[in-house]
Amino acid sequence: MRIELPSRAERFGANLFYSAQKLYELDGGLHVDDQFTSPFHVIQQIPQEQLYEIEKDLAIVIPVKDERMRVLEGVLTGIPHPCLPIIVSNSKRDLVDRFSMERNMVDTFCRYAKKKYIITHQRAPELAGLFEKGGYKHLLDEDGLLRNGKAEGMLAGIVLARLLGKKYVGFIDADNYFPGAVFEYVRLFAAGFVQGKTPYTMTRIQWHSKPKIIGSELFFAKWGRVSRITNHYLNRLLSHYSGYETDSLSTGNAGEHAISMPLALLLDYTAGFSIETYHFVNMMEKFGGIIPGPFLDAMKAGVEIFQMESRNPHLHDATKGTAHIREMIEFSLAAIYHSAICPDIVKKEIMGELRRQKILRKDQKPVQARRFPALVHLDFEAAAKVADWAKHGNFVPA
Amino acid sequence: MRIELPSRAERFGANLFYSAQKLYELDGGLHVDDQFTSPFHVIQQIPQEQLYEIEKDLAIVIPVKDERMRVLEGVLTGIPHPCLPIIVSNSKRDLVDRFSMERNMVDTFCRYAKKKYIITHQRAPELAGLFEKGGYKHLLDEDGLLRNGKAEGMLAGIVLARLLGKKYVGFIDADNYFPGAVFEYVRLFAAGFVQGKTPYTMTRIQWHSKPKIIGSELFFAKWGRVSRITNHYLNRLLSHYSGYETDSLSTGNAGEHAISMPLALLLDYTAGFSIETYHFVNMMEKFGGIIPGPFLDAMKAGVEIFQMESRNPHLHDATKGTAHIREMIEFSLAAIYHSAICPDIVKKEIMGELRRQKILRKDQKPVQARRFPALVHLDFEAAAKVADWAKHGNFVPA
Repeated sequence: MRIELPSRAERFGANLFYSAQKLYELDGGLHVDDQFTSPFHVIQQIPQEQLYEIEKDLAIVIPVKDERMRVLEGVLTGIPHPCLPIIVSNSKRDLVDRFSMERNMVDTFCRYAKKKYIITHQRAPELAGLFEKGGYKHLLDEDGLLRNGKAEGMLAGIVLARLLGKKYVGFIDADNYFPGAVFEYVRLFAAGFVQGKTPYTMTRIQWHSKPKIIGSELFFAKWGRVSRITNHYLNRLLSHYSGYETDSLSTGNAGEHAISMPLALLLDYTAGFSIETYHFVNMMEKFGGIIPGPFLDAMKAGVEIFQMESRNPHLHDATKGTAHIREMIEFSLAAIYHSAICPDIVKKEIMGELRRQKILRKDQKPVQARRFPALVHLDFEAAAKVADWAKHGNFVPA
Repeated sequence: MRIELPSRAERFGANLFYSAQKLYELDGGLHVDDQFTSPFHVIQQIPQEQLYEIEKDLAIVIPVKDERMRVLEGVLTGIPHPCLPIIVSNSKRDLVDRFSMERNMVDTFCRYAKKKYIITHQRAPELAGLFEKGGYKHLLDEDGLLRNGKAEGMLAGIVLARLLGKKYVGFIDADNYFPGAVFEYVRLFAAGFVQGKTPYTMTRIQWHSKPKIIGSELFFAKWGRVSRITNHYLNRLLSHYSGYETDSLSTGNAGEHAISMPLALLLDYTAGFSIETYHFVNMMEKFGGIIPGPFLDAMKAGVEIFQMESRNPHLHDATKGTAHIREMIEFSLAAIYHSAICPDIVKKEIMGELRRQKILRKDQKPVQARRFPALVHLDFEAAAKVADWAKHGNFVPA
């Protein structure tokens, strides 16, 4: 792979937010060109071997909810072999047991490909058992099962990845039509981690464009409606403290992202549609030095956030309606609004935005999304005793 | 890469047409799994090193005609580094000199990526000079320049690839929106050649699906209107001689294809939109043993045709109108109809089809496309003296 170096970085306490990096070659060749060692090169070649080194420690969590099965099969073909796909499905189990169909499809596919996988239903008792035994009940509902919701499924994926000894965890949606795009995202995840100099690293994908059907033509919009707004207010928050206006943060709603395990366990998460926006907010809270942070090791080592611009457009299944868009905007901005480090001036601007968009009336406040404390509080040793993973895939830990 | 073995092959004289092969993993990992050596495995892993070995001898010809430049830039990011892109552009040179803009974009891009390339305008005098000096004037018009037309540009690409010492030549359209799909196509080209056991090999891509905009939704059609018809009559021709009905040929209009140089130089080509269909017809003519073939070495060594099913949908720029579709159907079927090996019964069926489709009236015959004899008749040694390739790219042959 050949990508440009990040040309700028915004420092926010111990956080380094790198500006988006442009991809030049998806595959940069087998051998490394010596000329890239020149200190004056602005492009870097990331050797295959280093990408594979990361990939064998990288779990790819695929949250599934009734998506078309052949699209999911395509997603699997795009995931580089060394990565472990962890499918957390919340698909219907009755009248038709879609989950069972998914499990069969994945198992057959992986038998042919000789690919390891893990699959679990989000509402499986064994999955809830992990959190029960691990003493982390924030994700469980009154029935003692994992709550519904994509964020909850993603958190379960992090825990499974950690239990299976993975050092990195990435997220890919199940409804991506282009396996070649999936492949690029995962390679970019790995490229981010290769660049990281601390154990606390995150890679976020900035989509090249998002095709929309307008009339009978495709229009390649650079920014989604939600991203445009989310990024603006994240940058406002950043520049309030730095004193310099910026547009560095360009991945405020990056569903495609990956986190090093040490960092993934330290972050708080939110439910609803704000989990990706809240990453930024929570990193500023915890490692920004504005309010006291509990994790001194990470503060000392530093936290690096890479934003990688994909070359593939993002073409996925869901044709989201206006109601969903409005909900996403509200959740994303609420994640900023409710932060202890959000200054009054930015709060006021956010309220103005939400009223202008007619998402909130004058007397309303932004939604308070459910919040989940850092997974470092889960007792992984106890959790490890709950389930026999051989039953949940073709993967038996050594 | 992990792909299935071809499950069947249709023999037609010295030709072996393999049934389409399904891809399981775009990237099969750095190391080869020993278990694939089992003689009972139906999936094979093609090692990275073998793919790279092919790719460094593989030129990728990109015919360009006024396509959007940022789409072309995306295409370049998808081409694996070892391959040499050869851009044959027939874009406008006045009022705005689009070709010059393309050349600047490609040069800047390749400077950043440290990627070698060749670019030429289809109507450049140096390009015509190759054919003039090589004693092969079939492609030249009354002005002594290369004729307009995509097929003519493709042939120029083959000649350039041969002059630059490449052993394989593949074709990728410039209007593909998904660099990840381009990457897959090129990898599949290489995978085909790795499997080949003779010097005379062709790899053709069968698209997974072709998204169409229907209403405000995307529908993923498995077969294009033209392919459906072309493949039917190619299979009819094949089964007429074998005595067994077949649907083995599934890539009759495969714009994405690659040919080993020895085979590329032996084939005749047609202009218009039948070049890909005519590959099949001409291979049956030349190596089928039905009529005497001139190339005994190839007859003896055998010719292998791999059909690879891509996992990426084919989403490209051109929204082709009905007139173009009808023209493509006519040219494709005409390539079969006018063959010396096409039996009367198949000719009759083709005429029936063209009349049913209201493409031909009762008194009309299918179009006779211009035909170009095999490039083996070009004097490459003489042609090599014509141009200084350093002027046409950043590539200087050693």
